[in-house]
Amino acid sequence: MTLRRRPVLAVIGIGSALEPALGALCVELGRAVVDAGFRLVSGGLGGVMEAASQGARSAAAYREGDIVAILPSYQGDSANAFADIVIPTGLGIARNVLVVASADVVIAVGGGSGTLSEIAIAWQLGKPIVALGAGAGWPAELGGRAIDDRRDDLIVAATSVAEAVARARELVPGMS
Amino acid sequence: MTLRRRPVLAVIGIGSALEPALGALCVELGRAVVDAGFRLVSGGLGGVMEAASQGARSAAAYREGDIVAILPSYQGDSANAFADIVIPTGLGIARNVLVVASADVVIAVGGGSGTLSEIAIAWQLGKPIVALGAGAGWPAELGGRAIDDRRDDLIVAATSVAEAVARARELVPGMS
Amino acid sequence: MTLRRRPVLAVIGIGSALEPALGALCVELGRAVVDAGFRLVSGGLGGVMEAASQGARSAAAYREGDIVAILPSYQGDSANAFADIVIPTGLGIARNVLVVASADVVIAVGGGSGTLSEIAIAWQLGKPIVALGAGAGWPAELGGRAIDDRRDDLIVAATSVAEAVARARELVPGMS
Amino acid sequence: MTLRRRPVLAVIGIGSALEPALGALCVELGRAVVDAGFRLVSGGLGGVMEAASQGARSAAAYREGDIVAILPSYQGDSANAFADIVIPTGLGIARNVLVVASADVVIAVGGGSGTLSEIAIAWQLGKPIVALGAGAGWPAELGGRAIDDRRDDLIVAATSVAEAVARARELVPGMS
Repeated sequence: MTLRRRPVLAVIGIGSALEPALGALCVELGRAVVDAGFRLVSGGLGGVMEAASQGARSAAAYREGDIVAILPSYQGDSANAFADIVIPTGLGIARNVLVVASADVVIAVGGGSGTLSEIAIAWQLGKPIVALGAGAGWPAELGGRAIDDRRDDLIVAATSVAEAVARARELVPGMS
Repeated sequence: MTLRRRPVLAVIGIGSALEPALGALCVELGRAVVDAGFRLVSGGLGGVMEAASQGARSAAAYREGDIVAILPSYQGDSANAFADIVIPTGLGIARNVLVVASADVVIAVGGGSGTLSEIAIAWQLGKPIVALGAGAGWPAELGGRAIDDRRDDLIVAATSVAEAVARARELVPGMS
Repeated sequence: MTLRRRPVLAVIGIGSALEPALGALCVELGRAVVDAGFRLVSGGLGGVMEAASQGARSAAAYREGDIVAILPSYQGDSANAFADIVIPTGLGIARNVLVVASADVVIAVGGGSGTLSEIAIAWQLGKPIVALGAGAGWPAELGGRAIDDRRDDLIVAATSVAEAVARARELVPGMS
Repeated sequence: MTLRRRPVLAVIGIGSALEPALGALCVELGRAVVDAGFRLVSGGLGGVMEAASQGARSAAAYREGDIVAILPSYQGDSANAFADIVIPTGLGIARNVLVVASADVVIAVGGGSGTLSEIAIAWQLGKPIVALGAGAGWPAELGGRAIDDRRDDLIVAATSVAEAVARARELVPGMS
């Protein structure tokens, strides 16, 4: 028996329907996240969250329990079909704090105001952040920047799924 | 691939150090919960939460990912050593809502005001509740009672771990 | 200019329509609370919350700003008509924590599982609690009891509005 | 008796000590906010929050109850000395959601990741936002921009306290 916990990676991004290319990229991202040894956490709804969770299910390393959905409502049924573990918080927008607080590292792809708030909160909580620019939106704008001067690092800009996941692994102590 | 999610059982109870007999009972409870097919969620700290999580680890059916800890702080390190998945909410007492909201059924054993609030919230959220009287405290007092008239059922009183888990299974649609 | 803040009293109780006698008692309670020098906080919806807020408006000492409503939703319009200050939390049931956390002292009258959870949380947070038995429900049952052994005091049982408010004043350091 | 509630303005910005010029500007801002007919809400701590609250106290129109502090902790004593009404949420960073949810309009001045998260959340919640560029930081960067395409308006850029408060009044239906 080992008490060491598996590292957790949060994928954050837009919740609305994705264009096919971005959807395929997010599926690839979710698969790579689990195959890299992470458990996946997300906000549990549609768009980037659903595509990444779908990809996680298709990973070679996937085992039941690897995909966590932290929902804004009390309705567990609102989770996408790929979530293994559902936390229906009933907290509305405040659930965004929990998504990033649960993670050892965050990958942001696409996304608007919700994603921007999650990036800002992840920064406040000291979580390393990788921005995958392919999805445009705030991650594309913030990659390579600091949000404020409380931290010495930057949001890491990545241009491919493989690079994003490799950088995420480097940012979690003990993974690489 | 099946998209059906495993049922989740929350064990709630006192967070302070347990007398040996109650500690042993909670270890037995955690083990029986996982062996009955449930994933275990708790508040992730000490006392009943830790003993039940320890028991879950020792279950024959245990697989990594079966034990979820929903913490009041942002400090993942405050989780007991047996948690697989840690949700550090930073919400203080409000995290109690999430513990019961995450569950399909709740078993309460021992416990004071924190447990009482969780029982009351579980009742509000329509979650079936089993009270294991062996731990005294509010579960012993409330077993067999209704909290108010919004529901037609009662808090189920159980006198043994085996009975508590069997009743919990009956209360989750599709489990038995 | 004085920086001393006025003491805050939370009235907690059932949110559904009240029988006329209980409604009148809650109006009387709200009026007495403000005339005793308190600001009133409640969950901001109907039933006990609305009747107490209505009473507060009719107090001789009432000034705009004396009535605070802490709502479960983001919809400020869901507040009753007597609230001066509305905090739309979007937190669902977790807003109950904030109602009691905002108070120097709590008066409970009538009420079911929601009120029971608030009493239990107030106990956890160390807030003095007065139970007005006239409304039956959990306040009537818990008056004169301790919730657990973490505190040395008891929930104070009161049999009239005047007694409840007088006892509440005694329980706030510096008021009497 | 009128049931119409006074409009609420949230001032958001950095919580650490301010340079004298920015401190003076925030005092002026808080004063102008109350004199324009608003109640002031903030996160209740130091920096911009404290200076604005201090200014609100000095407004000609100030009345006790006009200054609301929504705190991250349960410690009411952590509020700055100028708050009239303290909501100690215990929610940590999630209290940021409540600050903007409580407001009819938001003015941002100075600030880093916390302020950025509040701007993003205000945008999600549909709250009009005025950015006072004098304090630099994210408000200076975001004035005149949209956060995403869910809204048709922009964050309003203002270059003086007078302009910020005048624009805020225009953004609240029924005020001007």
